[in-house]
Amino acid sequence: MSSVRVGIVGLGNVGRGTLRLLRDNAREIEAKLGFGLRVSAVCSRSVLRRRSAAAELHPTARKTADWQDIVRDPRVDVVAELVGGTGAARRIVETALAAGKPVVTANKELLAEHGPEIWARHSSRGGWLGCEAAVCGGIPVLKALREGIAGDRIDALVGILNGTSNFILTEIERTGSPFGDVLEEAQSRGYAEADPSADVDGHDARSKLAILAALGFGERVLPEQIAVEGIRRIRNIDFAYAGRLGHTIRLLARARREPGGLRLAVGPALVGKNTILAGVTGSYNAMWVQGNGGDTFYYGKGAGPAPTGVAVVSDLMSAARSVRETAAEFASPFGHASLAQHSPVSSESEVRQFYLRFRVRDRPGVLASLASKFAAQGVSVDAVLQEPHFDKNDLPFVMTLEPAERSALSAALREIRELDFLVDDPLALPMVPTLADGGDLR
Amino acid sequence: MSSVRVGIVGLGNVGRGTLRLLRDNAREIEAKLGFGLRVSAVCSRSVLRRRSAAAELHPTARKTADWQDIVRDPRVDVVAELVGGTGAARRIVETALAAGKPVVTANKELLAEHGPEIWARHSSRGGWLGCEAAVCGGIPVLKALREGIAGDRIDALVGILNGTSNFILTEIERTGSPFGDVLEEAQSRGYAEADPSADVDGHDARSKLAILAALGFGERVLPEQIAVEGIRRIRNIDFAYAGRLGHTIRLLARARREPGGLRLAVGPALVGKNTILAGVTGSYNAMWVQGNGGDTFYYGKGAGPAPTGVAVVSDLMSAARSVRETAAEFASPFGHASLAQHSPVSSESEVRQFYLRFRVRDRPGVLASLASKFAAQGVSVDAVLQEPHFDKNDLPFVMTLEPAERSALSAALREIRELDFLVDDPLALPMVPTLADGGDLR
Repeated sequence: MSSVRVGIVGLGNVGRGTLRLLRDNAREIEAKLGFGLRVSAVCSRSVLRRRSAAAELHPTARKTADWQDIVRDPRVDVVAELVGGTGAARRIVETALAAGKPVVTANKELLAEHGPEIWARHSSRGGWLGCEAAVCGGIPVLKALREGIAGDRIDALVGILNGTSNFILTEIERTGSPFGDVLEEAQSRGYAEADPSADVDGHDARSKLAILAALGFGERVLPEQIAVEGIRRIRNIDFAYAGRLGHTIRLLARARREPGGLRLAVGPALVGKNTILAGVTGSYNAMWVQGNGGDTFYYGKGAGPAPTGVAVVSDLMSAARSVRETAAEFASPFGHASLAQHSPVSSESEVRQFYLRFRVRDRPGVLASLASKFAAQGVSVDAVLQEPHFDKNDLPFVMTLEPAERSALSAALREIRELDFLVDDPLALPMVPTLADGGDLR
Repeated sequence: MSSVRVGIVGLGNVGRGTLRLLRDNAREIEAKLGFGLRVSAVCSRSVLRRRSAAAELHPTARKTADWQDIVRDPRVDVVAELVGGTGAARRIVETALAAGKPVVTANKELLAEHGPEIWARHSSRGGWLGCEAAVCGGIPVLKALREGIAGDRIDALVGILNGTSNFILTEIERTGSPFGDVLEEAQSRGYAEADPSADVDGHDARSKLAILAALGFGERVLPEQIAVEGIRRIRNIDFAYAGRLGHTIRLLARARREPGGLRLAVGPALVGKNTILAGVTGSYNAMWVQGNGGDTFYYGKGAGPAPTGVAVVSDLMSAARSVRETAAEFASPFGHASLAQHSPVSSESEVRQFYLRFRVRDRPGVLASLASKFAAQGVSVDAVLQEPHFDKNDLPFVMTLEPAERSALSAALREIRELDFLVDDPLALPMVPTLADGGDLR
């Protein structure tokens, strides 16, 4: 099947992330859709004057400085508006929708202020508007509210929706530095804008909450209807006092269905240290949702070229399915037009640190004899732990191994099972890194 | 618009949860879709013989003991298969798809073993198959992988996919009781089946991982291709040793893209205590996904009538949109056919505990004078905290208040601002419960 043709307007951070993912993940995208996404045109004010690394990832894409060239081009099937703001962006979105093209946007401000009106004007003509990238970047919170948990009645929702202010708050907590110093640091590292007001005064989170309120509670909320307070007055001493109360401080966007109506607020608040939102540190975003059917929590990077690019590309894929009407109807529950056959990778080839728990009848030489079996397979012992006060005839103790292939561990265990001091078969568990905050999943 | 008519086959836990949500959330569902979902028929072997509270929530629904009555009924637009197993369930799903009806299923076993073949047979005829309820109950992880982060290339995925074994492991950790005792306790509380093997031996998690592997990596995996290990051999002492190593133990389902292929495994593993998966306790489920675009984490209740019912009802809503072709194309990005106008609730009416941080020029009577202003508004002070070693001319200290309406706090603060010992305006932050594990979001 021929590719669906994408036009990208705006080559800032999000545009660049989108273009990169569209190239790097082209194979996976085609396997999922059953057809490709091809970038047929890109637009930015400077793309004709200056070299754009991202645009050059797609050498066949036409370059233009005039967005009208994109939205009116019959060779563009789907438009991504990645300009931001509510001026040109609004005209781009409306003109593309009016031309019958599905539109993907990352523009929270435009959506919060004018989204429902734009939608009302164009939905009757079969419009398609994707906006996953507008809230919580790479975390598909809108998809969750709109479809994944659509059957729930949402009672409350609490989000950490602004990564910059969360980074600043957790840096104040971590380093004890004053707000101004941490803000400067964030600016120098590119985490905060030269004018940080939208982030630190809560306006960015407020726009996002207005969008979430529409999806979660079906109400048209204007951002200015939401009480907002920023984080400029939070000091290190507040974290010290909050800590003594078993709490920390986060900038929360909150929505709660109450008898009198929908209560909405954005502002710093104390949250218990043992809660899941307290664990959200650095520039991460998160959303907690409580419904009458269940509670769910969503967490990830809320900003940056790659995470936001994921949301844009995912929406472009849905938009492309809507262009290919049949494909939309026939979308596989398994997310791929067809599945490849799996060839299992032997568990013996896995390289890991391992935890080994032995139960032995204790006597001199036990440790030496176990260690020698590992050494014979070229595996180093990392640590030996033995808690006191156990029965010498059934003594449990633990060894951890330096990273080794499981086949070497298995070979050593085959020999160890022959030893007469074992009370039962050794227990071997892999040690799996699973993401401390900011860490990597391997 | 007239309602879309739903037929439910199977009135076990999930069927009952589904029927309850379809009634309790009928108003919200209709606001979202723009039309209603009506339960037109229910089927279970005993529904004609015994009173079924759930079925009676829908008094107009026809009752039958023969599933053929449902799938062949022209007055049923959409079928939910909630029977489980791979025998009758398979015939129900295939017959309904062959009859051109969208099908929603919660059946992980059927999907893992036969799903791709069933889909291949029926997709060409315009089939629609929803299966969000099959993995992680109320957490929309399939929707996330299939659509929300479809633009990402998934590199690794780690899940806690079986609530029963997670409950057992965290109870062993918490109480120090042996596996057998905790299992018995779980059985008596209805958290574990009389035959617990599917849960504690890892087979349930394995079926779910096979489904996730299809969505995340595009590979057709048979459950028996995945190495599996259960939790029966984990003892309290393992948690003690793991704890000394800064780790805990979880039953993990793991998938990782490696040069040699897709590595899949289910088994207990050590995970660092400061990682997000270590924080998943009790019967909760979770999934971590690492892609080349970003990391995301999803968390919630993986089982139970209500959470699983949310997934079934959400799929029924998508299925209903696919029946109403136009509605599918025109689905609002805001998740509702139309939005209600928001009437803000005054922030002054919010009832909360509050944290107040003062900066004062210290002198005798400061505390008494502040406390009297709160007392005058009927607000009780909960705690007073004062760290030592601060400048007496700019002394920060904290009061927390018992739950009070913000209007009372505001009235007290208006008077307090008149006091001459304040160095700056008091900082008032709400204390917001945000879900310790198992707690409630208020």
